[in-house]
Amino acid sequence: MRFYVVTVLPEIFGSFLTTGLVGKGIAKGLLGLETITPRDFTTDKHRTVDDTPYGGGSGMVMMPQPVVHAMEDAEARERPRSGARPLRVLLSAQGRRFDQAMARELSSQPAITLVCGRYEGIDERAVARVDREISLGDYVLMGGEVGAMVLVEAVSRLIPGVLGNPSSIVEESHATGLLEGPQYTRPAEFRGDRVPEVLVSGHHAVVAKWRRREALRRTLERRPDLLETAPLDAHDRKVLAELEREREAARLAAQEAHAAQSAAKGAAEPEAS
Amino acid sequence: MRFYVVTVLPEIFGSFLTTGLVGKGIAKGLLGLETITPRDFTTDKHRTVDDTPYGGGSGMVMMPQPVVHAMEDAEARERPRSGARPLRVLLSAQGRRFDQAMARELSSQPAITLVCGRYEGIDERAVARVDREISLGDYVLMGGEVGAMVLVEAVSRLIPGVLGNPSSIVEESHATGLLEGPQYTRPAEFRGDRVPEVLVSGHHAVVAKWRRREALRRTLERRPDLLETAPLDAHDRKVLAELEREREAARLAAQEAHAAQSAAKGAAEPEAS
Repeated sequence: MRFYVVTVLPEIFGSFLTTGLVGKGIAKGLLGLETITPRDFTTDKHRTVDDTPYGGGSGMVMMPQPVVHAMEDAEARERPRSGARPLRVLLSAQGRRFDQAMARELSSQPAITLVCGRYEGIDERAVARVDREISLGDYVLMGGEVGAMVLVEAVSRLIPGVLGNPSSIVEESHATGLLEGPQYTRPAEFRGDRVPEVLVSGHHAVVAKWRRREALRRTLERRPDLLETAPLDAHDRKVLAELEREREAARLAAQEAHAAQSAAKGAAEPEAS
Repeated sequence: MRFYVVTVLPEIFGSFLTTGLVGKGIAKGLLGLETITPRDFTTDKHRTVDDTPYGGGSGMVMMPQPVVHAMEDAEARERPRSGARPLRVLLSAQGRRFDQAMARELSSQPAITLVCGRYEGIDERAVARVDREISLGDYVLMGGEVGAMVLVEAVSRLIPGVLGNPSSIVEESHATGLLEGPQYTRPAEFRGDRVPEVLVSGHHAVVAKWRRREALRRTLERRPDLLETAPLDAHDRKVLAELEREREAARLAAQEAHAAQSAAKGAAEPEAS
């Protein structure tokens, strides 16, 4: 898998390319990442890549020509390699939200060109020439660069051979469609907090059941939206119903405690005044 | 604003700290970013930061002690500076989703400790000692490092003085609650595509109206969910109603064209066979 990153800030990728998973993948020859700067495709002596917006307004807009030429340069580089035309992806706040399903789908591409927009905008005629717009989330960045790193890391770990331990891929949060429950390692006691008894029991089936229950509990508490699409079996649904009853009981108990407290306070007040 | 980043991969931040907006903010003294590695708080000679999970399973889990000590080290560093205790934030797939409102809220903190979990997990007793868990999105990364860069960039640009042109902050996608419409700059024609006439008209009020309409159109098409919370006035609602009617008309026209095509094909077929 090769990534071509079109960016006006190629230096920002320096450490990313030599460190961690992506650095290892590149060193092993499983991944390639080349930066291409639109400045190399400018035609004026100042190597200008942006200009003021038509119609007025603050900020600068990236001109279409250097960006489109940079994407075409990526295609010229890839041609003698896989022969494929890299998928043109623009990182932009207007795009479809990146998620694990998209990471999986992108991991089957032979090559991807990632165009890092700058936050003030990129000429719509360059945007019209990309295959896809992807957004990392509903927040504003200065440009697509750190978002590109996120996308590269999420996609790269799905490329066979990049991760040392492929069994890890399927177990963590979002890969199963649920959030992961709590994890524990040594020591058995840390500042008075002990590891749950069930995890030191050595009963694999009991541990597996507990873990599934905790994953369901956490997802129900924090991201109930994920339960609509997660693959759940009949047992999972029974556990979820139990967890909902537990929550309802806890809510009622809290309400009663609050009412009792108010009543006690009300009874105490006349004496105090 | 100071960031303390607890990470086992401090090298990955190298280029990020010297490039782009964050690099400039650091150079101007408006931002600080220090990495703290849990390895410096290990007690064995191999400087081990992780161990196998209690209850079995693949992968390694980060031990609580080095992580908690690293967070406490951030607090010891901040004490003589602002006297404040940095907000403890864990980047984790289980957290609340990061968005622009959260970026704004975090930008008022004097200091933040960002704990980069590793994807296989972090002992729950360390998790229990953070103030907040934040997730960048529904995808799996190797660790919190690139997510930390995203968060640092999104928060840093809101710190007064970091962005050269503060009027830019309020105009782009997500800051207004809507997606931004198309942007154009020179040349007036690129490979046969011309800039929309309205933008070269010079009528500021007409341009402003067109831009608002295009922002509403794009948001309606791509992210209708944002319209539920975006601040809209009566005119915006009128425009949205028009845009919905346009869409419906386009849908009906496409349906009719399809029906006419099928009928023509049906009429043509007996002759062809």
